[in-house]
Amino acid sequence: MVQIAVFGASNPSRNEIDLAEKVGYLLGKAGCVVICGGLGGVMEAVCRGAKRGGGLTVGVLPGRFRREANRYVDVAVATGMGEARNVVVAFSGDAAIAIGGGLGTLTEIGHALRNGIPVVGLRTWELEERRLMGVKIHRADSAEEAVRKALLLAERGEEAQV
Amino acid sequence: MVQIAVFGASNPSRNEIDLAEKVGYLLGKAGCVVICGGLGGVMEAVCRGAKRGGGLTVGVLPGRFRREANRYVDVAVATGMGEARNVVVAFSGDAAIAIGGGLGTLTEIGHALRNGIPVVGLRTWELEERRLMGVKIHRADSAEEAVRKALLLAERGEEAQV
Amino acid sequence: MVQIAVFGASNPSRNEIDLAEKVGYLLGKAGCVVICGGLGGVMEAVCRGAKRGGGLTVGVLPGRFRREANRYVDVAVATGMGEARNVVVAFSGDAAIAIGGGLGTLTEIGHALRNGIPVVGLRTWELEERRLMGVKIHRADSAEEAVRKALLLAERGEEAQV
Amino acid sequence: MVQIAVFGASNPSRNEIDLAEKVGYLLGKAGCVVICGGLGGVMEAVCRGAKRGGGLTVGVLPGRFRREANRYVDVAVATGMGEARNVVVAFSGDAAIAIGGGLGTLTEIGHALRNGIPVVGLRTWELEERRLMGVKIHRADSAEEAVRKALLLAERGEEAQV
Repeated sequence: MVQIAVFGASNPSRNEIDLAEKVGYLLGKAGCVVICGGLGGVMEAVCRGAKRGGGLTVGVLPGRFRREANRYVDVAVATGMGEARNVVVAFSGDAAIAIGGGLGTLTEIGHALRNGIPVVGLRTWELEERRLMGVKIHRADSAEEAVRKALLLAERGEEAQV
Repeated sequence: MVQIAVFGASNPSRNEIDLAEKVGYLLGKAGCVVICGGLGGVMEAVCRGAKRGGGLTVGVLPGRFRREANRYVDVAVATGMGEARNVVVAFSGDAAIAIGGGLGTLTEIGHALRNGIPVVGLRTWELEERRLMGVKIHRADSAEEAVRKALLLAERGEEAQV
Repeated sequence: MVQIAVFGASNPSRNEIDLAEKVGYLLGKAGCVVICGGLGGVMEAVCRGAKRGGGLTVGVLPGRFRREANRYVDVAVATGMGEARNVVVAFSGDAAIAIGGGLGTLTEIGHALRNGIPVVGLRTWELEERRLMGVKIHRADSAEEAVRKALLLAERGEEAQV
Repeated sequence: MVQIAVFGASNPSRNEIDLAEKVGYLLGKAGCVVICGGLGGVMEAVCRGAKRGGGLTVGVLPGRFRREANRYVDVAVATGMGEARNVVVAFSGDAAIAIGGGLGTLTEIGHALRNGIPVVGLRTWELEERRLMGVKIHRADSAEEAVRKALLLAERGEEAQV
């Protein structure tokens, strides 16, 4: 199964929640496994959408107990590693979609790109091109475009590798 | 879905492989998610059994790339954290089954028990009771007994908590 | 002892190496513990400078063995956790200085800011202010300014906390 | 500098505290860096002893903030990774001494041995020889013997490697 990681804040805007739910729905319809941080906000919205679309959801939690996962998480991975779990979310996608987001999302984007995992950005961080040394965030303007690009990139495989 | 973690070596005996495959099969038949370290040996055998039984398998990998997972892994979680991924395997079960095993398995048992996750042992480490401070490894003599006990313990919830 | 984390790439420009060595020297003279990723490039230059200045250097390594540390590292912390060690470097400073840097440095900045650790930037990433939710990278134009600001911020304590 | 990791519980017996303080003192006198989990109990006692002996102490903390370190810690490494920090403590010694201990200590012994780091045991876990595949816990009956053996083993280098 194709695995798509989704990054996003636990305190998103209404618009980001709508985008995340739509992204989740489309990924679910496409038969993907959706991997995220397992908590609230964008993470909950994308899981809710994915379940509605018939997908499988995985929540990689910062805490030690699976009960902290949002209720749309099918498989809860309890890391007990706090923020270091962002590395695990980032590494586990064949491709990733970043929706909005704050500092946690920034670290997930950084860890994913550094590991050669393609990232599609939907209203997320703009990073200085000259520092990205050849990799980039693929831009999308809609949930549909983000999912289409992510699936294409996931299929194509890693872009770069450090 | 009930999540059962399975611990065991990458270089098991023939007998441990047979036990692991049977444990996986019974967990799969019971509709469980089987979580393990995702590599070879006991990990591969339990995934193979689980798939035959119709279960879902999750491999929590030490490396950065999902392609290192054995081919019976449905969902690959790439941690890039080496041995520290044992903590993640240990924490992610509602209960755990340890089959045979060397030092890696020993650390998984320790991390699980310390986190209040019940562990069923099948030909695995014997630990000094006086150091276990009230927790224990539940003993089983067959794959059937191990799975029956693990499902019961998973349902009952945490035994202790640190 | 005041602990200052220093972030920077393993393949820096000549200019970044000079800056890093000067930063290290000034931190060493100030009696600080310098904490970094322990490998080459900016990490090696800052340790070399710190030793020349009489400071103590700590290298938090991605690998499992202390022998991978550069030769100016006094205390080698072997994590075996790959990129997740960036979280440890980021969390261990009372304040941090980022010098130049690529994606690894980006993740360290993100993890530090998210943990409320003040970051001083020297020719490093520019991040979108509107996404930083009130925190910021303190800018410096010279090694002297970076060290002066970092020591001041370290003394003052956390700025924010997530 | 030689680095010796010390493992032990946060709720030790009076006798274990005395042993830990003596071990710390002797390691400090020998000019070692003492690395431990940085909290209370054995960890605090060994740091107190090491400072009295003139050594350098490193506390690898489970939490995100250095202020949780005991007051005899010189260098605080804040991992934010909870129990996974046991891996870091275990990997960072040239040799290790385990004093008494519960499940956390058990995991540290397991991680150290698996990484080829020699472990000296002082009233600690007895592990089944047949499962240790050639490695072993070196036994000591006094603080003096433990320190002497650890220094010898640290000098000699890794015993095994997985």
